[in-house]
Amino acid sequence: MSNGNIFVGEVIGTALLILLGAGVCAAVTLNFSKAKGAGWVVITFGWGFAVLAGAYTAAPLSGGHLNPAVTLGLAVDTGVWSDVTWYILGQMTGAFLGAVLTWLVYYAQFRANADAAHARPTLGIFATGPEIRHPVANLVTEIIATVALVLPVLAFARNDGIGVGQVTGQAAGVYGSGISILLVSLLVVGIGMSLGGPTGYAINPARDLGPRIAHALLPIPNKGTSDWGYAWVPVAGPVVGGLLAGLVFNAAF
Amino acid sequence: MSNGNIFVGEVIGTALLILLGAGVCAAVTLNFSKAKGAGWVVITFGWGFAVLAGAYTAAPLSGGHLNPAVTLGLAVDTGVWSDVTWYILGQMTGAFLGAVLTWLVYYAQFRANADAAHARPTLGIFATGPEIRHPVANLVTEIIATVALVLPVLAFARNDGIGVGQVTGQAAGVYGSGISILLVSLLVVGIGMSLGGPTGYAINPARDLGPRIAHALLPIPNKGTSDWGYAWVPVAGPVVGGLLAGLVFNAAF
Amino acid sequence: MSNGNIFVGEVIGTALLILLGAGVCAAVTLNFSKAKGAGWVVITFGWGFAVLAGAYTAAPLSGGHLNPAVTLGLAVDTGVWSDVTWYILGQMTGAFLGAVLTWLVYYAQFRANADAAHARPTLGIFATGPEIRHPVANLVTEIIATVALVLPVLAFARNDGIGVGQVTGQAAGVYGSGISILLVSLLVVGIGMSLGGPTGYAINPARDLGPRIAHALLPIPNKGTSDWGYAWVPVAGPVVGGLLAGLVFNAAF
Amino acid sequence: MSNGNIFVGEVIGTALLILLGAGVCAAVTLNFSKAKGAGWVVITFGWGFAVLAGAYTAAPLSGGHLNPAVTLGLAVDTGVWSDVTWYILGQMTGAFLGAVLTWLVYYAQFRANADAAHARPTLGIFATGPEIRHPVANLVTEIIATVALVLPVLAFARNDGIGVGQVTGQAAGVYGSGISILLVSLLVVGIGMSLGGPTGYAINPARDLGPRIAHALLPIPNKGTSDWGYAWVPVAGPVVGGLLAGLVFNAAF
Repeated sequence: MSNGNIFVGEVIGTALLILLGAGVCAAVTLNFSKAKGAGWVVITFGWGFAVLAGAYTAAPLSGGHLNPAVTLGLAVDTGVWSDVTWYILGQMTGAFLGAVLTWLVYYAQFRANADAAHARPTLGIFATGPEIRHPVANLVTEIIATVALVLPVLAFARNDGIGVGQVTGQAAGVYGSGISILLVSLLVVGIGMSLGGPTGYAINPARDLGPRIAHALLPIPNKGTSDWGYAWVPVAGPVVGGLLAGLVFNAAF
Repeated sequence: MSNGNIFVGEVIGTALLILLGAGVCAAVTLNFSKAKGAGWVVITFGWGFAVLAGAYTAAPLSGGHLNPAVTLGLAVDTGVWSDVTWYILGQMTGAFLGAVLTWLVYYAQFRANADAAHARPTLGIFATGPEIRHPVANLVTEIIATVALVLPVLAFARNDGIGVGQVTGQAAGVYGSGISILLVSLLVVGIGMSLGGPTGYAINPARDLGPRIAHALLPIPNKGTSDWGYAWVPVAGPVVGGLLAGLVFNAAF
Repeated sequence: MSNGNIFVGEVIGTALLILLGAGVCAAVTLNFSKAKGAGWVVITFGWGFAVLAGAYTAAPLSGGHLNPAVTLGLAVDTGVWSDVTWYILGQMTGAFLGAVLTWLVYYAQFRANADAAHARPTLGIFATGPEIRHPVANLVTEIIATVALVLPVLAFARNDGIGVGQVTGQAAGVYGSGISILLVSLLVVGIGMSLGGPTGYAINPARDLGPRIAHALLPIPNKGTSDWGYAWVPVAGPVVGGLLAGLVFNAAF
Repeated sequence: MSNGNIFVGEVIGTALLILLGAGVCAAVTLNFSKAKGAGWVVITFGWGFAVLAGAYTAAPLSGGHLNPAVTLGLAVDTGVWSDVTWYILGQMTGAFLGAVLTWLVYYAQFRANADAAHARPTLGIFATGPEIRHPVANLVTEIIATVALVLPVLAFARNDGIGVGQVTGQAAGVYGSGISILLVSLLVVGIGMSLGGPTGYAINPARDLGPRIAHALLPIPNKGTSDWGYAWVPVAGPVVGGLLAGLVFNAAF
């Protein structure tokens, strides 16, 4: 894969991921949305199918990592670090673009948030936040949840008969077939349902930081704080978790 | 594929799509339905599995597009426009027929809507409508949501090892295998959950216009307006979105 | 396939289908159940995964029809009627056994139904019933819903590369692969969500009649009527629907 | 497979299973969780996707049984008992570890349970318990539910073209492909929805006993009893059910 393909693939794939992921949070949060109040089952399936859309579309160009934690876990496992920068640049760019697209899709709803008496909190549409603010506990939650994501993803790659050494060098990426991407999507649904309770499961630094920057920049009425004091947790936790998963996988398999 | 097969396949497939799609809207809306009030999760999964039923049945005859936005996206990408008319004619015919079948399935429930004191709004069973009426914003929502549908569909076709040039010329259509159609179905669930909040996600001109015509013609008590003033949005948005997705796909992949 | 294998396979498969299908109705209906009131989304997914369990287990013995409407649709399409009797005998026997197993699983809950002040209606656990009693409308609902099931099932069989003529003569039955059975399971979820509102979607004569007989025979406190006046509708509707789907499929494909 | 690989695979796989399975119970139960009160549909899908995560990750090392009932059913069917001890040791160890990881993920939430006025019951996060305490009925429920799990699992193995004699001797384990593990995951969702009402569906001795031991040992405020009087039921029921399924499968198929 060329650096250009990696970048373009990760931009398109991560933009789709965040468009649908931030989209489902907007759908259940904002007033004048048909999905308002639809609850946790819709949020978790919505994010899972967002992975499906993004990863499958990106697969032929970049392999569809969409997540620096996956890219880092693969790099640790394979020892190949040369493409990592292009992957992460694409992921961050795509995550920011996806958040802007979500804002466009819900433009009228965001504008209606100017009604201060019924304004809805908006940061949760773009970025994650803890129910109990306890940096160490929040970090541990994100680390373990990311390991629970990346460990099976590395196993998916190997089970599919793709040598992990080839994963960063082949069009099929971490997904050898449609079934693998479906399994990863449903795995993300499961991690959200099971481990998303305390912090809202970033499990992906780009997924949190890119849209948080968009939240800070976009002209949203009554948007409130972008909570930069917490922003390091959903970056550091998934980075550590991705690296850890690579080490565990390499040792055990 | 012969024009006859294309037409028959798209009629049967789109009729199944709308029978089950309008059906789930009837199920959660009408009085004396066991699913009344079942909510957004049932509506979105119901429409997704409607795609599964229709596309898989139609695949051997027409490839199972069921959606002019998909047909147009493929035509832009491949440059083959010769079959487009037969596809769209079949899709419109099937969508109308499917809406009539839904009305038959829920005949007793629609008849009970004559009780004016408890009558339920009926247009939402057949056609989409905005939560906030803002034609430009509504159009943008439909365009982006349709791109989010058609871009992965084009990628599915290519990932499956089917040359896109062959897609309109082979029985397997855009779906090379059962897994692809499953992924598209779940993608439709995801688009509904994430991007359906503002307008109810037409993302398919036939899906909206065909049943809207049926709504206007069928003898439904207390049926209210068919809202023709809005009807151009869910046609124009998906048409633009389908064409745009074909251009983006052709440029990026 | 020998007649013995067909019979044993259909007994085991249909018993699993009804154990899980009647089970999910018991789970959401009875007092002292952790799933009480879990709603339509659980009922419809529960029945879909019941099909998955039963059909996949039965596939190597009998092909996993589990439904006289499927058996009849295949017979119309292929012209092979020799095995039909054994299929339907196995399906009826299995449906009755499955209902007895459900009663055993929920034995303590059914016994607690002796508390007349909080007794729950029990027929809906075993058999279907209409929200609006209108035999012609109810029959039309069951016919169309059954066509929406059997038409894609016949298409699944053919798409999988299995000649329909071989379907009743091969171990893989109507399901050439795991993905087909998954698609059929999700199709059943979708039919339930979309078309189950008026009558509770029997779409299978054995599914309704077998458990209704069990309901009439089992010693359940406060069990109420077995409603034999309605029992012909969920038999006749699916039989007509299955035959009709075979005719339509044969003509169109 | 070496004994070491079996042990390591079952430890990692069962730890993932319980991390996500106990996790979803924590998510819907504890205060200060975004999923609080999300209900039965989230619990059952959460456990199903927990199976997906654990079994797929473990597959190349141990085959991904994760459940002594599955291991015993296979041993009865194949007559090969030599690996059984290592499987069960790994499963018990992993189940205990997974429960500890869940506790770490929800550390802040468990600590907040010290507020006695709003304390939540915690045993249900780790272990199962009956709605109506009736040991014989509870045992019958667990036996039948386990047969409904293990019988299709044995059929999955054979349908996938894997000789059952090879199942305990090959890397692919009971799952010949990604689709089989997806089917098993959804089967577990279905068993939970349909048969989980009376006892909370242990259907796996390790799943119940390992986390129950963790519950007894971990420093959780207001944790209440570990209910050792009931602990034998979710061990004995699944053991009997697994053996029974092996016998039935061997006789019928």
